[in-house]
Amino acid sequence: MSVYNFSAGPAVMPKPVIEQIQRELPSLNNSGMSILEISHRSQQFEQIMADAVANIKDLMAIPDDYHVLFLQGGGTGQFAAAPLNLATKHRSIALLDSGHWAAKAGAEAKKLRFHVTTLATTESGKYRELPRLNQTIPANSFDYLHVTINNTIEGTAYHEVPESNIPIVGDMSSNFLGERYDVKDFGMIFAGAQKNLGPAGVTIVIIKDELMHHVDGIPSIFDYQLNADKNSMLNTPPVFAIYASGLVLKWLKEQGGVDEMEKRNRAKSSKFYDYLDQSHLFNCPAFKDDRSLTNIVFSTTHDKLDQAFVEEATNAGLLNLKGHRSVGGLRASLYNAMPMAGVDALIDFLYQFEKDHKEVTTHVSN
Amino acid sequence: MSVYNFSAGPAVMPKPVIEQIQRELPSLNNSGMSILEISHRSQQFEQIMADAVANIKDLMAIPDDYHVLFLQGGGTGQFAAAPLNLATKHRSIALLDSGHWAAKAGAEAKKLRFHVTTLATTESGKYRELPRLNQTIPANSFDYLHVTINNTIEGTAYHEVPESNIPIVGDMSSNFLGERYDVKDFGMIFAGAQKNLGPAGVTIVIIKDELMHHVDGIPSIFDYQLNADKNSMLNTPPVFAIYASGLVLKWLKEQGGVDEMEKRNRAKSSKFYDYLDQSHLFNCPAFKDDRSLTNIVFSTTHDKLDQAFVEEATNAGLLNLKGHRSVGGLRASLYNAMPMAGVDALIDFLYQFEKDHKEVTTHVSN
Repeated sequence: MSVYNFSAGPAVMPKPVIEQIQRELPSLNNSGMSILEISHRSQQFEQIMADAVANIKDLMAIPDDYHVLFLQGGGTGQFAAAPLNLATKHRSIALLDSGHWAAKAGAEAKKLRFHVTTLATTESGKYRELPRLNQTIPANSFDYLHVTINNTIEGTAYHEVPESNIPIVGDMSSNFLGERYDVKDFGMIFAGAQKNLGPAGVTIVIIKDELMHHVDGIPSIFDYQLNADKNSMLNTPPVFAIYASGLVLKWLKEQGGVDEMEKRNRAKSSKFYDYLDQSHLFNCPAFKDDRSLTNIVFSTTHDKLDQAFVEEATNAGLLNLKGHRSVGGLRASLYNAMPMAGVDALIDFLYQFEKDHKEVTTHVSN
Repeated sequence: MSVYNFSAGPAVMPKPVIEQIQRELPSLNNSGMSILEISHRSQQFEQIMADAVANIKDLMAIPDDYHVLFLQGGGTGQFAAAPLNLATKHRSIALLDSGHWAAKAGAEAKKLRFHVTTLATTESGKYRELPRLNQTIPANSFDYLHVTINNTIEGTAYHEVPESNIPIVGDMSSNFLGERYDVKDFGMIFAGAQKNLGPAGVTIVIIKDELMHHVDGIPSIFDYQLNADKNSMLNTPPVFAIYASGLVLKWLKEQGGVDEMEKRNRAKSSKFYDYLDQSHLFNCPAFKDDRSLTNIVFSTTHDKLDQAFVEEATNAGLLNLKGHRSVGGLRASLYNAMPMAGVDALIDFLYQFEKDHKEVTTHVSN
């Protein structure tokens, strides 16, 4: 069955990568062992890890004074690890409240007894636009500013990193390597692989060396300095997830890197947004300047019709278009591995669905 | 190239499981999506997770008042999570110091500012035998007793769980499902998958419900109660590692379950230990009653000869026989997925190696 998978994550991966994994699954590099069986202390895996780190550095043009770590535990793990490692001076972090995941990050830091201050929020407008700093952050108040760079659930993204006089910790889980950012603008970036990189089970942390230091009394698997000292092999790493992500990184380079991905993601998302904006049935709530290139939130604004849409789309092989349970509606994630053909198929389907439900569009436009 | 992989972990997996993963990698159950791409919120994955939990419960005859959790972060993560969740009353744990990993568990708890008391140690005897309790543990002193059930590095295992009047937390990473234990003897069991279960990237926790409770101020990904409430899907779980482990669980059931595995592991390890015990060159340091069924530590007692052995064995397709860097020597891990044919090939190789190095055996026996 040929399908397009619009899931927000775990999500579609490049077909050639899946094929390569399948091909070499029984025996990696003619070793007689599967990637699932090789030791993380083997030369083979050390090379896989070194290549993955080098390729992320190259793709993102990461300056030499940053480390790239492969950890476990996802964004939720980093919501704890970031304050535990970085908020040691003031025990206080600042936040731009741009939606669900920003709030979750704040709640986790609070749970761990850090002070959390929301400097700006767009909650009252249902997060249709991004909160922005209209002030200089008071000196010596906060250890860092947490920013959710791409808001997977609300369909918004900071295309310009907020100017900040304190280090920014950027949650880039859902547009990692899908859009060009200047790493120098961040003290730290983190991303779960399972959206725009690879399979679930590995989390990437990119951190400026000067922010890392040994911290007393925190769990070792969260300790960035310790993990950096051990080249992300403090304990057994998720070998397969790193291997698969590594293949995606190589694929990204072959395709032309982050700039090419951004170009394609802009082309895909613009085409889809353009369709939504002219539609009499479908609606996109996100403000134009703040729209995500990777997660497109839309709706017919009728719950039952949204539900019918998801069902009919599923039958047509257009999968996982249901919006996040916290906001409802519809969502199409157009990650790096989603080809333009998938977007075209989706638009064709929306067009037909709209035609089939003329009575609703008339009602709406009245 | 046909090889036998004696790695202590990540380690050999059953061949039929690798073949099944390969076969269904491009499209799981004719969904058009790879297991690497399906959402953890999909019905397909919910079934995979439910089956995996049910099969572990069945295989280990786990009583109804225990939960089975799939987490991330390995044993090192659990060295932190266990005291954070369970040592809330006395902030104090007891330990049987049976070797490297027991000491690591103690060090991590100390790092997190728990009191750690070693009730028995066999360090002075280089951990060739297991430490045993020769006293009743004082009431109201410790929250639990940490026991490393199988000592991967030292090649020892508790075949009888120590009698304890406080809950036991058992680290079963390297003989999980390879030997029959009564789960009722434990307050909690944990195991990284990458030794005797599946690929690296998932950690199993089996915990008695009465020991679980919400704990303030600990990282959410470590919170057992929270993870239990969310059926191990508090955040995106390591989908592929759970799927692959699930296939191994099904294979284990087809093979006859834990009792059959223990029978085979006893047969495999006995044959190998018998060979070592009659050898004039190779030596097994572990005391007979305490020998592990899964990790067999041995040596020629000559560093250079051990090194030559590893090199020649590697050339013969007998891989990863080097002992852990902390103790040197040699080690063969004979996990559930290692067939008797692998043990036979290894013994044949030892026999030939001994014949080729007669001058040393003569020297040793003088």
